Amino acid sequence: MTSLSVHAPGKAPELPGKRLSFGERRLKLDCGVDLPGVTLAYQTYGTLNAEKSNAILICHALTGDQFVADQNPVTGKPGWWQVMIGPGLPIDTDRFFVICANVLGGCMGTTGPSSTDPATGQPYGLGFPVITVGDMVRLQSWLIDHLGIDKLFAVIGGSMGGMQVLQWAATYPDRVFAAVPIACAARHSAQNIAFHEVGRQAIMADPEWRKGAYQAEGTNPSRGLSVARMAAHITYLSEAALHRKFGRNLQDRSAVTYGFDADFQVESYLRHQGSIFVDRFDANSYLYITRAMDYFDLAAQFGGHLPRAFKDTKTRFCLVSFTSDWLFPTSESRAIVHALNAVAANVSFVEIESDKGHDAFLLDEPEFFKVLRGFLDGCAELRGIR
Amino acid sequence: MTSLSVHAPGKAPELPGKRLSFGERRLKLDCGVDLPGVTLAYQTYGTLNAEKSNAILICHALTGDQFVADQNPVTGKPGWWQVMIGPGLPIDTDRFFVICANVLGGCMGTTGPSSTDPATGQPYGLGFPVITVGDMVRLQSWLIDHLGIDKLFAVIGGSMGGMQVLQWAATYPDRVFAAVPIACAARHSAQNIAFHEVGRQAIMADPEWRKGAYQAEGTNPSRGLSVARMAAHITYLSEAALHRKFGRNLQDRSAVTYGFDADFQVESYLRHQGSIFVDRFDANSYLYITRAMDYFDLAAQFGGHLPRAFKDTKTRFCLVSFTSDWLFPTSESRAIVHALNAVAANVSFVEIESDKGHDAFLLDEPEFFKVLRGFLDGCAELRGIR
Repeated sequence: MTSLSVHAPGKAPELPGKRLSFGERRLKLDCGVDLPGVTLAYQTYGTLNAEKSNAILICHALTGDQFVADQNPVTGKPGWWQVMIGPGLPIDTDRFFVICANVLGGCMGTTGPSSTDPATGQPYGLGFPVITVGDMVRLQSWLIDHLGIDKLFAVIGGSMGGMQVLQWAATYPDRVFAAVPIACAARHSAQNIAFHEVGRQAIMADPEWRKGAYQAEGTNPSRGLSVARMAAHITYLSEAALHRKFGRNLQDRSAVTYGFDADFQVESYLRHQGSIFVDRFDANSYLYITRAMDYFDLAAQFGGHLPRAFKDTKTRFCLVSFTSDWLFPTSESRAIVHALNAVAANVSFVEIESDKGHDAFLLDEPEFFKVLRGFLDGCAELRGIR
Repeated sequence: MTSLSVHAPGKAPELPGKRLSFGERRLKLDCGVDLPGVTLAYQTYGTLNAEKSNAILICHALTGDQFVADQNPVTGKPGWWQVMIGPGLPIDTDRFFVICANVLGGCMGTTGPSSTDPATGQPYGLGFPVITVGDMVRLQSWLIDHLGIDKLFAVIGGSMGGMQVLQWAATYPDRVFAAVPIACAARHSAQNIAFHEVGRQAIMADPEWRKGAYQAEGTNPSRGLSVARMAAHITYLSEAALHRKFGRNLQDRSAVTYGFDADFQVESYLRHQGSIFVDRFDANSYLYITRAMDYFDLAAQFGGHLPRAFKDTKTRFCLVSFTSDWLFPTSESRAIVHALNAVAANVSFVEIESDKGHDAFLLDEPEFFKVLRGFLDGCAELRGIR
């Protein structure tokens, strides 16, 4: 099991995998900045057919990356959706050409706050412009152009990945045959902004953060990032899942110790989640990507009227939510479905019964897999993919 | 508006209000330590009648204090339950004698980690023994003894205060005529332990915490404590309340700033909550009191069987929960009601419709007030209180 520190400047470019650099071509960002020197790190699986009609773009969540269906070179673990994507799996790489790119602002090879600012020769840090989900998608479209793909067969993603799917469908309606936004929302809620703000404050409270210049100063705000991850991790699970997995069980002891050690399994688990996270993620990327999610409000891009985002769309939509997901509850998916219905879009919607909370979208949920396989099979037939 | 720093050693004893010191009498703690030199800070309201039959003990929550119905000398704000307690109010001080004491482990005058350790002459810091809800209640019983009260007319409290109410009813059944556990649970859930652990890790991650010795070293882990408060504060509200109060409204600006300032009102609100909290609360007290809540498991004290905690009880119970409280959801109150029913106890239970989350118990909720007034009136008649 390899373990690289992705914080160290210049390490992420050394990660294996595909790279696409755009040199002097400038990416127009929503904040008004034209960003030069952009690089995109991505992976592909399967084979693009001659008609270039079988490409599926997978969009990853806040802390995901491009290693969706093969071993992650940093953690040594399987890809984050390897249960879903592969030969014979619901997203069948014997049939589809699957693309996944690290998002703009990320720390796995795509340009982000830990990249070198060409103007200074130093890591951007807080000098990196604040980005949006729209910016992430705009950069992905350059990759799709580069691959010579006119129209994606499908764009699929959960959580922040689902926000990107919605953005794709709204911005490039003619380039998306089918869209699968999973466990997401058309705008980030007040409660979710609040949880993100706690995470950011935890990072910024760490004196090693150095106003974002920790790379240049040789420090590492890992304690703050770890606290941010712990708080976020609770929101990815459900009360029921925590109760079932841990309850009040003690960690390797028969009685409480009357101290501040991790007496309870749930404490030990959370601390572990915090500590492994800091080995694979960059604190500034965490700030920028949570901010992009906070800013996401698709209706606001269309005069405050969500149906307008999907006017005249020919894309086939399949929305999925999970009963115990309290971060992106079913009501959020339903609001999107209502907007799609209002413009008579082709939409199906399934709420999956699960007690696993938001994280259910990453797990082997048979009913969810069945739905996704069925939807993709139907669309593939329509699209003439064998 | 006065503002004292309660962190500075020796400041809390200067706060106004009643004190009761037990000198060499040692408080037997659940952890096995016999604690000497204990002081209890408390407030009373109304007049104890000749029969000493009209006393109500109010138990406060995690960050509450003894100033329940008069101005808080640290914040200058009204008492935390001044809407509930006073002449003519549901807990009527024209009729009842109301007592509220700062809990053991607190930072408002009762002995806690910021008190001076008689053995060293220095603040206890992490040398303070880990305490339990049972220990808090044991110390309160000394105060009730001191006041010459044989049987309390009622013990009332919400959240951790409700845990103390349950502990009182279980440990001293003959001393509690009526018990009102509000928005609480008979054992702290895995999710709640998890949120507490995040708060503790945020404090301990602050280098100014100095392994708990910040008083001696002249530092103050206020950033860590502030992050802990922010995370906890989200759990005190509901998604609906956050949406209604803030939604995605911007703070004094017409558009997002593409930065990490508090663009959204909800961020500004949370930061404010964090920053005012550190002026009135002690970081080590936060560690100790959250730990006491984590350890609370009433059934475990009675062989794992909750009904046994209330066997043969003659206490009249009134349980209250709130529909949108996800920290102590109605299911937790219902589990207590079931246990009380199993021993044929006298119990009523009301779930109040409210979108204000856990904090509803502190707010002016008319239906809740009506229930409490009705229950206390009925019990007062039975007890022969005019």
